[in-house]
Amino acid sequence: MRFFDPTNTYAERNCIQNHKKDLLALGTRAFVITGRSSSKKNGSLDDVIAVLEEASVPYKVFNEIEENPSVETVVKAAEIGKEFKADFVIGIGGGSPLDASKAIALLIANPEESGDCFYVEKDLKALPIAAVPTTCGTGSEITPAAVLTRHDTQTKKSISYKLFPDLALVDGKYLLSASKNLLINTCVDALAHAVESRVNIQTNIYNQMFSNYALKLWGEIIPFLRSEDELTEELADKLMLTSTIAGMAIAQTGTSIPHALSYDVTYHNGVAHGKACGIFLAAYLRIYAKHKPEDVDVILSLLGFETLDDFAAFLKEILGIVTLTEKEVLFYVERMMENTSKLATCPFELTREDIEKIYRESIVVE
Amino acid sequence: MRFFDPTNTYAERNCIQNHKKDLLALGTRAFVITGRSSSKKNGSLDDVIAVLEEASVPYKVFNEIEENPSVETVVKAAEIGKEFKADFVIGIGGGSPLDASKAIALLIANPEESGDCFYVEKDLKALPIAAVPTTCGTGSEITPAAVLTRHDTQTKKSISYKLFPDLALVDGKYLLSASKNLLINTCVDALAHAVESRVNIQTNIYNQMFSNYALKLWGEIIPFLRSEDELTEELADKLMLTSTIAGMAIAQTGTSIPHALSYDVTYHNGVAHGKACGIFLAAYLRIYAKHKPEDVDVILSLLGFETLDDFAAFLKEILGIVTLTEKEVLFYVERMMENTSKLATCPFELTREDIEKIYRESIVVE
Repeated sequence: MRFFDPTNTYAERNCIQNHKKDLLALGTRAFVITGRSSSKKNGSLDDVIAVLEEASVPYKVFNEIEENPSVETVVKAAEIGKEFKADFVIGIGGGSPLDASKAIALLIANPEESGDCFYVEKDLKALPIAAVPTTCGTGSEITPAAVLTRHDTQTKKSISYKLFPDLALVDGKYLLSASKNLLINTCVDALAHAVESRVNIQTNIYNQMFSNYALKLWGEIIPFLRSEDELTEELADKLMLTSTIAGMAIAQTGTSIPHALSYDVTYHNGVAHGKACGIFLAAYLRIYAKHKPEDVDVILSLLGFETLDDFAAFLKEILGIVTLTEKEVLFYVERMMENTSKLATCPFELTREDIEKIYRESIVVE
Repeated sequence: MRFFDPTNTYAERNCIQNHKKDLLALGTRAFVITGRSSSKKNGSLDDVIAVLEEASVPYKVFNEIEENPSVETVVKAAEIGKEFKADFVIGIGGGSPLDASKAIALLIANPEESGDCFYVEKDLKALPIAAVPTTCGTGSEITPAAVLTRHDTQTKKSISYKLFPDLALVDGKYLLSASKNLLINTCVDALAHAVESRVNIQTNIYNQMFSNYALKLWGEIIPFLRSEDELTEELADKLMLTSTIAGMAIAQTGTSIPHALSYDVTYHNGVAHGKACGIFLAAYLRIYAKHKPEDVDVILSLLGFETLDDFAAFLKEILGIVTLTEKEVLFYVERMMENTSKLATCPFELTREDIEKIYRESIVVE
């Protein structure tokens, strides 16, 4: 079994300023990758720029990363980064800018390659990467995954390269301006990471330490997710930490069936990533429990649920429902059955009937 | 708080052969660092050489690392490594060869430096390092520490550089030829790592995950340590894993008071490292419990002891006693009070009386 968790991670208030030495050690010309608005609003972009300007480090900001970033956007950004002669990349935001920053760092470091390289196995290295998460779900700041939207195959897929950020700067304060809806969706993504790592065929004692810890923390944030309460500073830190720890778990194993099922629902139906994963969790665990009930008991107990029914009801309560057509369900089931690499993350054989059952239990057919 | 655990670690049977690709990726000319005999006897040296020869990688073996290696030995080895033009270092053995291999990798990479550089703060990088542990205590395969014997100051001290191995290949089978005495001493070193990381001023949730897990595993090996039983293959894997996980804990925080106290007893009285740490554990926890009883309760409960008295009696049972003169005790107490950096690892102020009390409770004065 393998333990590999190389990202230098600081999780604390004001860590960009406190650990600017580590950030500036990554390079001399910074390419800052972010989305259109949230990193401006929550202060993270200003905090990074302040450190770069204070040290007179030239930088360029690319702020056009969309949700579920496409290969095309990444290629466009990389062209700008190459022209700027960037020698390190700083991703700021949710999973979209962070994942994109990894793929961009790979393309800039290999100027002879095109976007075609992402899904081919080659021995390519990326520029140094720093990651500043501003949502509490992705874990991308400490995972090697970079999931991009592929319009050619009409889905989302992780690129073939394992690109751990060199540095993660994790500060809960950037959550304070997020909407409750965003917090719920991203928290549920972190929950899916902790669960899918725990029930993965690759699971070992190392990721289980992280999964178990994240599930315990997640159990403690349930009352907030159910309530109308505003996010406090203390709770913001806990949400962010939960996401980072769950990321450490998923970094070891990769994601499993609920994430695989989510991609079609996100690509074709526009359901937000965390919600798209979360709607499948309970039904997947119900199938899983038939084969390995002890793992599901641990998960429920750490989260503080008595039964899978309670867990399913809670997720419906905070996520709402997703409606698909009968045709969509049948199409998506077929696509899942073709995704042999993700099916192989389940420790027992999943049949077409299993997958269809998960769908019908998780969504409403209109 | 910081989480940093970058070593690529494989913990499994035959991992040198299984993951030779990772080993060979570190360089093109290997300098193999080990002790005089045990790595020959337990097969680890042959396993490494087989991989190097199979790939036609030139290598040189330096097998003169003594227990508690001196700066002088490290400097001598580095000269040979430089002459050989080594571009990566493979340490094989207990803590002594592994720690030495880090310091040697540093000196070879910086040919203009002498052994004087070890205790000065400079920005020096080392050659890539692989570590193959063959005892179950050091954790050095996944920590950044390299403790050397300094004859100038008549003690042992960790060098100023944090040198995580790039690769750790952890195979329990190398323990099968070890004596029970060696297993006990090195297991107790791992115990000290788990405990000292848990009660360290630097403790955070990350090292606590590792500490807690290692303490739980350690509790499970107590019956073996108390018995006359031979080591089984399954138990060998557990002993080795416990040591590696405890190493991950100590990698985050560094060691604390029992390790600091051990160095004089090892340097001046020749007491083996693990035993020298272990004899101080219970008395230190007794002082600690007055300030933070909840931490000590967790440690005892994970290990499976009801009281500190039970824990102390168990350690005496497996380690035996250490005898010092009155003059030695007073001298060592003074030296500990001068070791301000290690005193600062305790979350409350330790007085001269506290240190003397720990000594008098831990050893027999003749």
